[in-house]
Amino acid sequence: MHKELLENIGEKELIKRLAEFMPKNQISDDCALIKARDKDLLINTDSLVENVHFSNETISALDVGWKAVASNVSDLISSGCCKIIGINIGLVVPPKTDWNWIKDLYKGINQALEYFGGSILGGDCSVGKEKVISLTAIGTQGEIKFRRNSCKPKELIMTTGLHGLSKLGLMIKSKKIWNKNTFITQTLIDRSIQQFCKPKLKPKFLKKVLNARPNKNLKTIGCTDSSDGLFQALLDLSIESNCKAVVDYEKIPKHKNWPVGDEWDEYYFFGGEDYELVFSLPLKWAKNLLNVDKTISEIGYFTEGSPTVEFINLKNDNFQKYKSFNHF
Amino acid sequence: MHKELLENIGEKELIKRLAEFMPKNQISDDCALIKARDKDLLINTDSLVENVHFSNETISALDVGWKAVASNVSDLISSGCCKIIGINIGLVVPPKTDWNWIKDLYKGINQALEYFGGSILGGDCSVGKEKVISLTAIGTQGEIKFRRNSCKPKELIMTTGLHGLSKLGLMIKSKKIWNKNTFITQTLIDRSIQQFCKPKLKPKFLKKVLNARPNKNLKTIGCTDSSDGLFQALLDLSIESNCKAVVDYEKIPKHKNWPVGDEWDEYYFFGGEDYELVFSLPLKWAKNLLNVDKTISEIGYFTEGSPTVEFINLKNDNFQKYKSFNHF
Repeated sequence: MHKELLENIGEKELIKRLAEFMPKNQISDDCALIKARDKDLLINTDSLVENVHFSNETISALDVGWKAVASNVSDLISSGCCKIIGINIGLVVPPKTDWNWIKDLYKGINQALEYFGGSILGGDCSVGKEKVISLTAIGTQGEIKFRRNSCKPKELIMTTGLHGLSKLGLMIKSKKIWNKNTFITQTLIDRSIQQFCKPKLKPKFLKKVLNARPNKNLKTIGCTDSSDGLFQALLDLSIESNCKAVVDYEKIPKHKNWPVGDEWDEYYFFGGEDYELVFSLPLKWAKNLLNVDKTISEIGYFTEGSPTVEFINLKNDNFQKYKSFNHF
Repeated sequence: MHKELLENIGEKELIKRLAEFMPKNQISDDCALIKARDKDLLINTDSLVENVHFSNETISALDVGWKAVASNVSDLISSGCCKIIGINIGLVVPPKTDWNWIKDLYKGINQALEYFGGSILGGDCSVGKEKVISLTAIGTQGEIKFRRNSCKPKELIMTTGLHGLSKLGLMIKSKKIWNKNTFITQTLIDRSIQQFCKPKLKPKFLKKVLNARPNKNLKTIGCTDSSDGLFQALLDLSIESNCKAVVDYEKIPKHKNWPVGDEWDEYYFFGGEDYELVFSLPLKWAKNLLNVDKTISEIGYFTEGSPTVEFINLKNDNFQKYKSFNHF
């Protein structure tokens, strides 16, 4: 029989192929929706695999626990979740694992749940060759649905914070950054390591969007998180909403000490795991929100056209050579 | 720092230790309960790891898919679930995996969901060294709560079917049984392989229990499944309900061609993965149920006493030497 190996297929193609096994009413976002008589529920699964998503050299068990919760909760928040109910844990660990590692993992999970809300509901533990932490988070769908497919032409594109920091944190922790001669300030180092190890997300985002809403009939906005990088987030919104994102490079918010250069742009746009929200709103709603929250930045707008990301005021045109962050 | 390795701790001790990180209101069963305004939800996670729970030599991808769903759904059914909503899939696969394997896995998952109800809600896919299928199933809590801690003295102990078959199926598929001289009929071989590869569970059990209920005020029964073997199921009910199980060896239902002998008792009581229900009911309720369903067998009763499993009419007293099925 002809063998078509997964390594030759790639992640994007895999997701496309797996879609044929999904029910037709599946929402395009990472999260799935469970219809209920009172409030709909959001459910999301994310797995962290040792030496793929984390390693003992770069992150502690305590921070892996926090990050496993955060990466799941981020998908709920970016779907408009108003309340985290809890998580189920599917844990795989080698028999040689130190009990202290597991204890710290659970401590980190509980620290994150104290911060984001919700509790451990249940789970399963098994042995295996390498550590896998597969979490399923469940929460309540809030009043406004955040969906990738709901951006519209003429809406402003915004983001809740800085990008590239988590990638820089990883580079520092894995000692890959010291080979470079770039001057990086201690403030930037500390901030990047914190973003890599213990991302705080934006749990109050839904409330802010609700407060800024000019009209109660508006119930859906276009939104996703930047877990796979800012560029991928913009591309996903464009593709799922079938319109063109125009991004103004000069408006992109950067850390005040963020160095200049091609590689720094690459970290910024393709680094991933910053878990900031990337979304679009009609003009009035956007202006209300930008007025009350100075940490949110306007970075561009959507317009009619084929689903792509177009940059204006771009200082280099190397973007075509970049590939987006890919797990495979 | 002192290293206490997981392989020296054992699964039971691990579960006990992990309990300290769980919220106090956790139910003792494998399933967790999510309180909702209309109907409560049940949520359960079970992970299958390659070469721990399955291997290419003994089971096809199609059957792994079915079994992954079945092992999760069994925990929902044994908690009194009245409707399967769906599952989330956390899949880890090595890059060298053949796409056909993944396609067949999802086919098997969907076949099982067609049979048991529910659909794929969402999930996540990542690379790793070995295959891990971590499923989280979610369903609606039915009118009667099935709980491990709800058996009472004087109640009859019953089970929905035969045990040991799945273990025998595994032995046949892994070619370990042919070394023995025992005569096994083709009927038993076929039935065992089917039980190992494609367990059908008892999805109509709740309805039968409801129909046999003598009094609508009865809302909880003691119940679990035999996923870790009949002996472990009886022990779990005893411990969680704090009473003694007295089991009549002569009443234990066996396949008509099931051979006699110590090793066959071992397969029967400690084999696991048969996913039959093991439960107790007050006398009148039990008799109603036994009258309408001849596939259900009475096998003993609960009595006051320290939580243990005591056998009567036992032909051998080797039971003490047996260890229960243990993943670690």
